[in-house]
Amino acid sequence: MRDFSGDHAWLSLNTATVRKQGDLLAITEACARHGIGAISPWRDQVAAVGLEAVKTAVRTHGFKLSGYCRGGMFPADASKLQEARDDNRRAVDEAAALDAACLVLVVGGLQQHSRPGSAVSHDIALARTQVEDGIGELLDYAKAAGMPLAIEPLHPMYAADRSCVNTLGQALDICDRLDPGKTGALGVALDVYHVWWDPDLYAGISRAGLARLLAFHVCDWLVPTRDLLLDRGMMGDGVIEIRRIRQAVEAEGFAGFSEVEIFSELDWWKRPMDEVLTTCIERHKSAV
Amino acid sequence: MRDFSGDHAWLSLNTATVRKQGDLLAITEACARHGIGAISPWRDQVAAVGLEAVKTAVRTHGFKLSGYCRGGMFPADASKLQEARDDNRRAVDEAAALDAACLVLVVGGLQQHSRPGSAVSHDIALARTQVEDGIGELLDYAKAAGMPLAIEPLHPMYAADRSCVNTLGQALDICDRLDPGKTGALGVALDVYHVWWDPDLYAGISRAGLARLLAFHVCDWLVPTRDLLLDRGMMGDGVIEIRRIRQAVEAEGFAGFSEVEIFSELDWWKRPMDEVLTTCIERHKSAV
Repeated sequence: MRDFSGDHAWLSLNTATVRKQGDLLAITEACARHGIGAISPWRDQVAAVGLEAVKTAVRTHGFKLSGYCRGGMFPADASKLQEARDDNRRAVDEAAALDAACLVLVVGGLQQHSRPGSAVSHDIALARTQVEDGIGELLDYAKAAGMPLAIEPLHPMYAADRSCVNTLGQALDICDRLDPGKTGALGVALDVYHVWWDPDLYAGISRAGLARLLAFHVCDWLVPTRDLLLDRGMMGDGVIEIRRIRQAVEAEGFAGFSEVEIFSELDWWKRPMDEVLTTCIERHKSAV
Repeated sequence: MRDFSGDHAWLSLNTATVRKQGDLLAITEACARHGIGAISPWRDQVAAVGLEAVKTAVRTHGFKLSGYCRGGMFPADASKLQEARDDNRRAVDEAAALDAACLVLVVGGLQQHSRPGSAVSHDIALARTQVEDGIGELLDYAKAAGMPLAIEPLHPMYAADRSCVNTLGQALDICDRLDPGKTGALGVALDVYHVWWDPDLYAGISRAGLARLLAFHVCDWLVPTRDLLLDRGMMGDGVIEIRRIRQAVEAEGFAGFSEVEIFSELDWWKRPMDEVLTTCIERHKSAV
């Protein structure tokens, strides 16, 4: 297992972590100032300043992109299917333009929440079929673009509206059906926040192996958690055994970035950008 | 599958559903008024009015008890282990005194949250061992009292503080290890709120079979859910396929009560008791 205590060479900043403190160009400037060498930006942050400006900033500072957030939201009724398809292809194109390591997929929940305007459905099994169909179709496009797709299983509390893929095992089942050869084109983004509770987590990490582990995200689970979406904790402030999980991931050969992704309307989004980044670096050393 | 559309003979009221509107004696009066023939009371509600008074009310109105809430909170450090043991035995005694169908177990999360005062631990695997040890020990006591224990798997969002048993499969694994003979002494309480998202739900219900299905609880999952604990929805107001789940449970031979259990600080706890009960009855007919 790599020793992170001495530096933050393997820290990547998911730029949603400081999304309220500045635009993506301000965030890249701050990362450069703090010696953070990798980022994972969100599409809306890129769109707000323009793809070309982001490409320039990435090149200027020599950033690696541990991922690009995000594609997905596949469930849709017939009226919204083309929108979902086009939107996801654009996400692949943007990720490729920025030379991201993978496009992270938040696959979507029930169709009316995944693609608003779709007819109301409560059939989660249907949503799961729609997801697999959507990934299967996008996979051809992504392969042609040389962009790996990383399915991110999301915590079951997001099953209705954000992702009906809720366990690592479920994500790996999809990977195995759509990419049985483990070509590297399809894998998972493992975020400790979503999977820490799973009694099958460590078996799932072994099953995933290096071929499927495309990204590793960290933050922490607070007790109490005051909001389902926007109350993630800084690493070390919650109950997740982050190091134990990283150890399991690295035992499979994973040697990529630990990407810090914290949505925190109640705390970290209110603090100055430099304070957040300084804390991320400290906790990367002490708690990741 | 039973037809619930004509009456509410199989409705049981978990008395937490109207806990803010009156004490347990007021709740039993209201249930009698609305022709509700079964209840599932909470220990604190019983304690507030006294066990003898509750026994009298149950006898007077001829209520069945679909369950008793709750035992559990097993994880504890050495300083709190005796407290946990004594507390759970008292819960068994009370359930037996009220002739409940089962004692529902909310098993607890990390020991400092399960039994406050215990040393801080982030080891969820340890918590799971503590749970199984605790149930195993309580089981002997419960068998002697003739009181079935129903493990309630709780949604993964409660893994840290309320229950580290988070899937039906996990609960059934415990049942199979501690009660391999399926004697009826140990089973599960299946609450649609906690399990609806689980891709293995229907396989789990088949696996459980009649021998393990001791209780069936209903409410609904709202989108958005504004609070992790106290924003459960009335049946029909959310996204859970309640009828599909009931159908699967009844296909195994389950013919017991559908117990309505809604914690809703933001909505139903603010309404008059009679309005809540009338709505429960309507939705029992139309959405359960």
